[in-house]
Amino acid sequence: MAEEPKKGDAVGSGVGGREAEEEQVVNPWEVTAKDGGKIDYDKLIEKFGCQRLEESLVRRVERLTGRPAHVFLRRGVFFAHRDFNEILDVYERGEKFYLYTGRGPSSEALHFGHLVPFMFTKYLQDAFKVPLVIQLTDDEKCMWKNLTVEESKRLARENAKDIIACGFDITRTFIFSDFNYVGGAFYENMVKVAKCVTFNKVVGIFGFTNEDHIGKISFPPVQAVPSFPSSFPHLFSGKDNLRCLIPCAIDQDPYFRMTRDVAPRIGYQKPALIESSFFPALQGETGKMSASDPNSAIYVTDSSKGIKNKVNRYAFSGGQDSIENHRKYGANLEVDIPVKYLGFFLEDDAELDHIRKEYGAGRMLTGEVKKRLIEVLSELVERHQRARAAVTDEMVDAFMAVRPLPHMFS
Amino acid sequence: MAEEPKKGDAVGSGVGGREAEEEQVVNPWEVTAKDGGKIDYDKLIEKFGCQRLEESLVRRVERLTGRPAHVFLRRGVFFAHRDFNEILDVYERGEKFYLYTGRGPSSEALHFGHLVPFMFTKYLQDAFKVPLVIQLTDDEKCMWKNLTVEESKRLARENAKDIIACGFDITRTFIFSDFNYVGGAFYENMVKVAKCVTFNKVVGIFGFTNEDHIGKISFPPVQAVPSFPSSFPHLFSGKDNLRCLIPCAIDQDPYFRMTRDVAPRIGYQKPALIESSFFPALQGETGKMSASDPNSAIYVTDSSKGIKNKVNRYAFSGGQDSIENHRKYGANLEVDIPVKYLGFFLEDDAELDHIRKEYGAGRMLTGEVKKRLIEVLSELVERHQRARAAVTDEMVDAFMAVRPLPHMFS
Repeated sequence: MAEEPKKGDAVGSGVGGREAEEEQVVNPWEVTAKDGGKIDYDKLIEKFGCQRLEESLVRRVERLTGRPAHVFLRRGVFFAHRDFNEILDVYERGEKFYLYTGRGPSSEALHFGHLVPFMFTKYLQDAFKVPLVIQLTDDEKCMWKNLTVEESKRLARENAKDIIACGFDITRTFIFSDFNYVGGAFYENMVKVAKCVTFNKVVGIFGFTNEDHIGKISFPPVQAVPSFPSSFPHLFSGKDNLRCLIPCAIDQDPYFRMTRDVAPRIGYQKPALIESSFFPALQGETGKMSASDPNSAIYVTDSSKGIKNKVNRYAFSGGQDSIENHRKYGANLEVDIPVKYLGFFLEDDAELDHIRKEYGAGRMLTGEVKKRLIEVLSELVERHQRARAAVTDEMVDAFMAVRPLPHMFS
Repeated sequence: MAEEPKKGDAVGSGVGGREAEEEQVVNPWEVTAKDGGKIDYDKLIEKFGCQRLEESLVRRVERLTGRPAHVFLRRGVFFAHRDFNEILDVYERGEKFYLYTGRGPSSEALHFGHLVPFMFTKYLQDAFKVPLVIQLTDDEKCMWKNLTVEESKRLARENAKDIIACGFDITRTFIFSDFNYVGGAFYENMVKVAKCVTFNKVVGIFGFTNEDHIGKISFPPVQAVPSFPSSFPHLFSGKDNLRCLIPCAIDQDPYFRMTRDVAPRIGYQKPALIESSFFPALQGETGKMSASDPNSAIYVTDSSKGIKNKVNRYAFSGGQDSIENHRKYGANLEVDIPVKYLGFFLEDDAELDHIRKEYGAGRMLTGEVKKRLIEVLSELVERHQRARAAVTDEMVDAFMAVRPLPHMFS
């Protein structure tokens, strides 16, 4: 297997001493495009040293699972990977793997950008019939966002309800929060990883500085070790070679670059990754959405009326400034947010193609596209809200119970 | 209460950039006197900013406990403190406190230097009738000594047997290893502490460098948090203001300087300390004993014959080079190791005075003093070996069980 390219180490090193010519910053805490423009994903792949997710892999997924690829896969939302082909090799041989994803619970309500990895992970779980561990990094948010321990733990449970509402299979899913689960074999693995990573290394990968508190510096191993089956003895005892696949947004790549670097040194398998681009803000595609601006995103708690208002008022349109010009030149689909959002959530390929064609040619107006988007989002949000309302505290306890999952591979 | 003096921060900062004029290095991993001489404890008190343990405090301990002070207390082995007077105030008001001490399990067999804090802690437990937590930092040793997790855990259990053999009261004592116990409320406190300490701060306190691995940088909160009762909900639930007294060798002071600095910022009481000097090596009093030279120390596993051999061959003598000169000038008690060792372990004050007087005057010869020391040490070691042989795995499990101690204050 090829060595990990080390180029990625340059990314994020900016916090301590950012160079003037640095083009974009993508790390777990900051996503900033060059000059307020779009994130350059090709450049990111090159810098991080991951691989582009080629069409042929998507076809292979369809062949192996016997079902159409998820919209996020066939439309390139998940666009990069590390060793995803090896996971498919394993699966093709009739062996299994497990999925690992997570969330930093820093806010009460999730927006659609937060849901993307979970919607996709649910598809992977259903398609491959594999177990899944979901980490809620309440310790991270307590340290980065200056939340109290209690508030972080409360947000973790609230977020768990939204995650459960995505429809995960309780017989195959273990959700845990760090404040509840760190310890034992998990802590042993944290120590094993920490021994292999110098301060200089985390400065290079994450951009920490000498003025950062040691809680931050201690954290990367916490997010690293769910990549190793031995961190979950109640699930994977005796299965130390089980491969792990991590679906996540590409800003999490630095953690797993570090993890993959360390893994062989402590006798573990490297986790594989399948990585998404960022869900764009309503105002336009210049990075991730901003938690501090509630009008930059559609939340799963928004009402249909609120969604209608946000889409109509804030969704950046690629349509022309007058109907005449629009009929003449058509919409600029490259910057149009309603069309981009439909690309995430309108499952019907034919209808999406039709909209893109008609809107791009100026025969369809922005108002019509927004109307269709409002319908799609409202339906999704209503479905989510119904599902979340049905999630009881007992269900949260059940998903978070440290327990064996005897049928997780069947 | 007075602010913590910050002078101590200079100590140990040498690892990253030691100044030529630095006189001595005392931190948890290095004890080096100036120019191979003796440790200057007065200077250490001044640098660390702790207080000398005055005779009047020793008298107060005797008055409050109604028993003679331990040899280590009345002979100045424990010579420094932080807020020990406040612990006595608490006790005098009829309230309680708890004791916290520990060991880094890096070797199979303990020597007498290792036993000093435990012998003293047992006395404190008996005299004050208070609960005790004993931390075995197997994670620390795994990270610093490059031991495997398994070997560190095994050594922790082996060392627990020696500690139990010191006679601790199981109804008042909880022994835990970090690999077993880190998690839950303990981990929550680790995060709270870590948030308050920058990398620059641990560089100043512990001398870490940018090339150190992040396991080391993550560790200080692990040793800090047993100072807080809320780290032990099975023992001290609802007793968040219970004071903590830490008996330890003074090389551990940096951890607790950091802990005391952080405590008020997270709403906790500062731990109090009572600190010992270092038990001298057989070859002379120039620091701590060296684990890499088995002839520098008497181990609790040594045979009577081995003890006799080590004392006779290696114990540095202050006697003169000929009997004539010895009769004429007497022994130099300031450098004589047999007399120093008797100062630790010969309980009879009158006999010790007699030996010091006769030996110092040249009327007693080195051979006679060594003979008495061999008797005292052999008896101690035989007693320890008998006690340790009686410690079963079940007893270790019982001491290390996470359980309430309902009679710990009675």
